[in-house]
Parts: sequence; structure tokens; C-alpha cells
Amino acid sequence: MTASGSANGCSAGEAVFDWVDRHARHRRDNGLHRVVEPRRSAEDVLDLASNDYLGFARHPTVTEAAAAAARRWGTGSTGSRLVTGTTELHTTLEAELADLYGTEAALVFSSGYTANLALVTTLTGADSTIVSDSGNHASLIDGCRLSRARVRVVPHADPEAVRNALAESSPPHVVLSESVFSVDGDTADLDGLLAVCREHGAGLLVDDAHGLGVLGGGAGAFSAFGLGAPHDALAAVTLSKALGAQGGAVLGPRRVVDHIAQAARTFVFDTGLAPPAAAAALAGVRLLREEPRRAQRVQEVAHGLHGALAERGVPAGSPGAAVLGVPVGAPRTAVTWARSCLEHGVRVGCFRPPSVPDGASRLRLTARADLDDDDVRRVARTLAETAPG
Amino acid sequence: MTASGSANGCSAGEAVFDWVDRHARHRRDNGLHRVVEPRRSAEDVLDLASNDYLGFARHPTVTEAAAAAARRWGTGSTGSRLVTGTTELHTTLEAELADLYGTEAALVFSSGYTANLALVTTLTGADSTIVSDSGNHASLIDGCRLSRARVRVVPHADPEAVRNALAESSPPHVVLSESVFSVDGDTADLDGLLAVCREHGAGLLVDDAHGLGVLGGGAGAFSAFGLGAPHDALAAVTLSKALGAQGGAVLGPRRVVDHIAQAARTFVFDTGLAPPAAAAALAGVRLLREEPRRAQRVQEVAHGLHGALAERGVPAGSPGAAVLGVPVGAPRTAVTWARSCLEHGVRVGCFRPPSVPDGASRLRLTARADLDDDDVRRVARTLAETAPG
Repeated sequence: MTASGSANGCSAGEAVFDWVDRHARHRRDNGLHRVVEPRRSAEDVLDLASNDYLGFARHPTVTEAAAAAARRWGTGSTGSRLVTGTTELHTTLEAELADLYGTEAALVFSSGYTANLALVTTLTGADSTIVSDSGNHASLIDGCRLSRARVRVVPHADPEAVRNALAESSPPHVVLSESVFSVDGDTADLDGLLAVCREHGAGLLVDDAHGLGVLGGGAGAFSAFGLGAPHDALAAVTLSKALGAQGGAVLGPRRVVDHIAQAARTFVFDTGLAPPAAAAALAGVRLLREEPRRAQRVQEVAHGLHGALAERGVPAGSPGAAVLGVPVGAPRTAVTWARSCLEHGVRVGCFRPPSVPDGASRLRLTARADLDDDDVRRVARTLAETAPG
Repeated sequence: MTASGSANGCSAGEAVFDWVDRHARHRRDNGLHRVVEPRRSAEDVLDLASNDYLGFARHPTVTEAAAAAARRWGTGSTGSRLVTGTTELHTTLEAELADLYGTEAALVFSSGYTANLALVTTLTGADSTIVSDSGNHASLIDGCRLSRARVRVVPHADPEAVRNALAESSPPHVVLSESVFSVDGDTADLDGLLAVCREHGAGLLVDDAHGLGVLGGGAGAFSAFGLGAPHDALAAVTLSKALGAQGGAVLGPRRVVDHIAQAARTFVFDTGLAPPAAAAALAGVRLLREEPRRAQRVQEVAHGLHGALAERGVPAGSPGAAVLGVPVGAPRTAVTWARSCLEHGVRVGCFRPPSVPDGASRLRLTARADLDDDDVRRVARTLAETAPG
């Protein structure tokens, strides 16, 4: 809030919380105000804004699993995972998720945000160094802040910068990166990063929120990059994107995952994931194993979108998984473009500061396995026809 | 982890993450290891460990609302609340929750933990002072850490200490307290705190996770303490306790709640609450309005439990809402007692460090509206008969 000339808090003569009006004016003056707009349950809109990559959120097998779980287990888990909040659904989901991912163990959280906080805070401490990609997600950055570790932010997707940072620090140190970066959809070179980590005795922590269900035949980034079940790397995933549910999980060696269950404040002091969400995620995991073709289809659609947009002169980053970023620049231009697309029946994401750096507002498109080639052409045509002049 | 003589991180000669084994040994040696034990869906156990105060998690109206929402809206919200993650269910829930609570506005999060992080981090900053009760929940403490504010921890439930801390700081400053403290179940003197805040131009932030649905005829702590709809105080609640679902919410003046929606990283960068959980919470809010008697019954059961335990020589703190704490001391003694209760068909919570201070392990019992007087007598008898010698 530096741009408005004041931080959170009142000035002389103001009442408590009056300062929020100044912040609101600043956002409106700079095209940064966000509107919370409810969706209707049935819309005649082509959705390229959600993270429902595989279409599981409305898949009848998944919705029926959630409905059955509400009746059998109840609508809430009723307590911390360490008290009453663990049902057989949770432990089954953890076993099958670990099996899909190829790791020894998994631990399920109520959100991806809290899973990432747990991953970072329990595996680092005040004497650690975290080497963190500059493009990392807010939840990872908050994890770094809570960890009290020394944080070295390195340029985006640059293993050489990571090597240099590790050479200048000493164990305990970890490298922190997304697999698929959430805004632009580019991927990290995970096998390169793991090799660099091993040169320096560092652990690797990967946020695979946008990789699970898309990369590696759906099994995620560790499989896609051939990492196997590393003793020195862990991943966090969400259950709310490709799996169509809610929640998050950390995955890795059993002894390390057990440590996280004992030590993570967002595990110990949070209510466990609701049974309908756990059941939906479990149904998603099983569908993914039965129909791995879906994961491949998402990537085909993403590449098809990239090609169709390029043909029409709309530049988008090359998608590493399902996400495409279209650079725009000014926040107001991005908002206007996204709104025009929606008026033409195509919903796209619109990212402005603080979600992206100043001057780097963009549209964000996500591929889904259930889009067909006509959909792809329609999206490209709509973006081209509504593009700012 | 000071007791084991080493922080997170490897020592010379150890491989990455080998240090977790040392932490595990330390926990086992000190009776601090936790087991993640799944519940079965049907158990012949009297539950006094969950936070399902009103029995809503398995109420057919609530479970059917969740099942219908899974089918109508899907099992996940599919994106951030600011992109695709807001459905009409979310905005309806927010309107009815604010109406129940008596505030202008409400904002729903995917967990109570992330709601508390949002409340603290968006309403304070590096130039703020937070006066924080020493008994506050982990999520509030993490919020303080993330806020970068100066934090003054004051003795538990001591308005005079708060007054002194505010007298020594200057605006912007806020007071941070739970309404009902989650471990011992005692209540803060909220009208006293608000008066002290107003003497010093401070805001008041209240975690009412254990008050909503129990205090104030179910409307929560602001109603119970007659605060009205204060311009200078906000509350956070959970949807996962009395409402039987999952998630959290912040409640307060519209302009301040709007600010939180714009600024909270755990709102902007987290997937929205899953529709089945939003629908369950909404059904819970409506049931609570239709049957306020349930809220009163929880408190009757809590006081009945307190009296029955006292008669049998089991000392428990006087319950301010639904939670009773039974002091034990050593962690192993608490674990053994809780296990004996379970063998006799009564599930109670068992709190050990780091959830409570060293030497202050205890059992935690929660009243539920659907317990009858026979249940209460059976619980007291079981605790007395299994009490450590």
C-alpha cells in the first residue's frame, strides 16, 4: 500500500478502520478493485478460468461420491485430524494419493494453502536457508515468512541461480519451487533442480498444485520428471484443481510426512477436510487411474489453444501443463478484455497486481480435458476479436 | 524442538531430512507422539471430543443440503473466490451469516485457520501494535507473525493488562482475543475489552470459533456481550464447529470486510470453499435460526457436565460455552486417561504440548445439544472411574 502513501492504520483525526477507505480509493483509482461476482449453477459460458482441468468437479461419479459421503460420514470432519477429524475416508485417500504420486506417504489438509504452509514451516527453521523462486505462490512466500528461515529469492526458473545460492549457503538448506507456475503456466526444470540440490546436500520442496492430474499421465511432476520416490524431495498438491474437490496434501518419504503430521500448525490446529471433499478427491484419484487419457487430453487442448491463439496473433506463453498466460500490461486493459470475452460467452481469468508484478497484468486461460476442437477455435476467435487495439 | 538440542536441519554426516528421526525420538521419549487414528462411520462411542456442538454434521437437513449442492454446483468451487470460486451459495451464505451474527457483512474462507490469518494480516501492518492474549489460537499467532506488526503478548483474560499495553502503544493498534478459548473453554470479557479499546482508539479482533452457535442464542459472542454491530470490532468464526461443515468467515462493517476481500492473501490466492460445505453451513445457519433452543441446550449440557464431574471429584474449569478442560499435568497420564475413557465407550480430547504449555496437559470435553442427562451422568462416571490414581 506504499502507492497511497500510508500503511494499514489510522492517521490523526481518523476513527479506527477509517484507513480502509483510502485503500479502496487507491485501488479504484488504479484499476485494481476486485469484484466478488457469484456464478450461477447453469451458465451458457465456455469456462477457461477455472482449474477444473479434468472436469471432475461436475463428473457424476465424483458428485455422487461426495453426496454419499455427506450422508455416511457427515458434512464436517468435526475436529482436528489428530482428534476426531480423521475418518477412514481420509486415510484411504492418503494411501491412494501416495500410490498415484509414487511416494511412500501423503497427508491431507483442508486447503492447498495450509498444505504449503505446513510443507515449508515444518521442514525449515531459524537456522535454515530457503532458496525460493521469485515466481512462487503466495502460500509458499507466507510459509517462508512463518519459517523464520533466511530466504534467498532467486530469479524465476533459473537452476544456475539456485546453484549459486546453494553454494553460498550451507545445510540445512532447501530449494522451494512450483512445478507449474500458476500464473504463466511455465514449468520448472525439476530434475535439474534436484541434481543441483544433491550437489549441495539440500532438500527440494515442490508445489505441484497445477501438475497433479495433468503431468506424468496425471501422476504429477515427480513422475513427469522421472524423480521416482526421492528421499530428499517432497511435493504439495491441491485436491481442488484437477481432482475437482477441496483441500491439499503433502507427499514424500513416510518419516518426513509423519514429522509434518506431528509438527504442522495448519494440520494440528485446523479442522480436518470435510468428508464430502475427501470422498470427491478419492473418486477423482480413482477416475484418473482408470482414465489416464484425460491427463493427456488436457495437454493436447493446451497446445491446441496455444497454436490457435498464435495463428490469430494473440501471444500466449507456451504451456508446460494446462495454464496459458496472455500478457496485457495495464490492469484496466486486462479487465476490459476479460469482460469483453465474457460478453462473448468465454470466461477467462484476469490477473492484476498484487497477483502479478506492476505492469504485468494478464489474462489466464486454462485448458480442460472436456473441451473439443470447436471450443478451442471459438476461444481463439473470441480473444482475437476482443483484443485491445 | 529445543528440548532435543537441535533445530530443524541436518548435522554433519547426516543426509537431508535425517534430522526428523531425532525429532521423532524426542517426541516418543516424552509422551508427545501423536497417532492419526481414523474413525469408522458407525461407532458405539459417546463423543465428547468433536466440536459438532449442535449435532449438525449429521443432521439430515444439513447432509441433504450438501448432497444436493454437490450435484447442482459440483464438488469443488474450481478457483479463487475472485475468479470462478464464488457461487450464489457463497454469497447467500455470507448474507445470512452476517444477518445471524448482526454485522453488516461476512466473507467466507476455506478454513477457520485461513480466515484468522486474513483477519489479522489485513487489518494490521508493520507500523501497528497487536495486543494479543497469551491463550490465543495458533492461527492468530501465525497471523501476528505474518503481519510484521509489533506484538505485545499480555497475560490471559486480563483486560487490565490490555489497558496497560494500549496505554504504552499508539494507534494504529488492535486487541486480539478469542471469545471462548479453545482448550479450557473460558470466555473473554468482550464488552470490557471493547471499552478498553475505545479508551485508546484501538480496534478489536475476536476469534469467535467456539462462540458461534452456542453463545447469544446461537448468534455468537457479539450478541452475547451486547456489542451490537460495532464499527471498530470484527469477528472470525468457523463453519466447521457448531455449523457442522468446513470453512471460516470474517464478520464486521461492510467497508472493512470489503477491504479484507481485496487484501487477504488467504482469500485471493486460495480456492474458494467447496459448494457442499457452503451449502451445509447455510443449512446450519437456517436450522439455528429456526431452533435457537439448541444453542441454549449446549450450555445446559456443559453446565450439567461440570456439575456431574464436580460431584464425582473430577475438577473441570467452569464452562463459558461448550468446552470443558480437565487439568492433568503429564502428557502420558493424559493419554492413558483418554484411552481408558475410550475403552469405556467415551471419547474425550487429549491436549498435550505444543497445544498446551509444558506440564499442562489436559482432557478436553465438549458438550453437544443432543446429549441427554443419562449421557452426562455416564461421562462423569466414566471419567471418575478411569481417573489416574
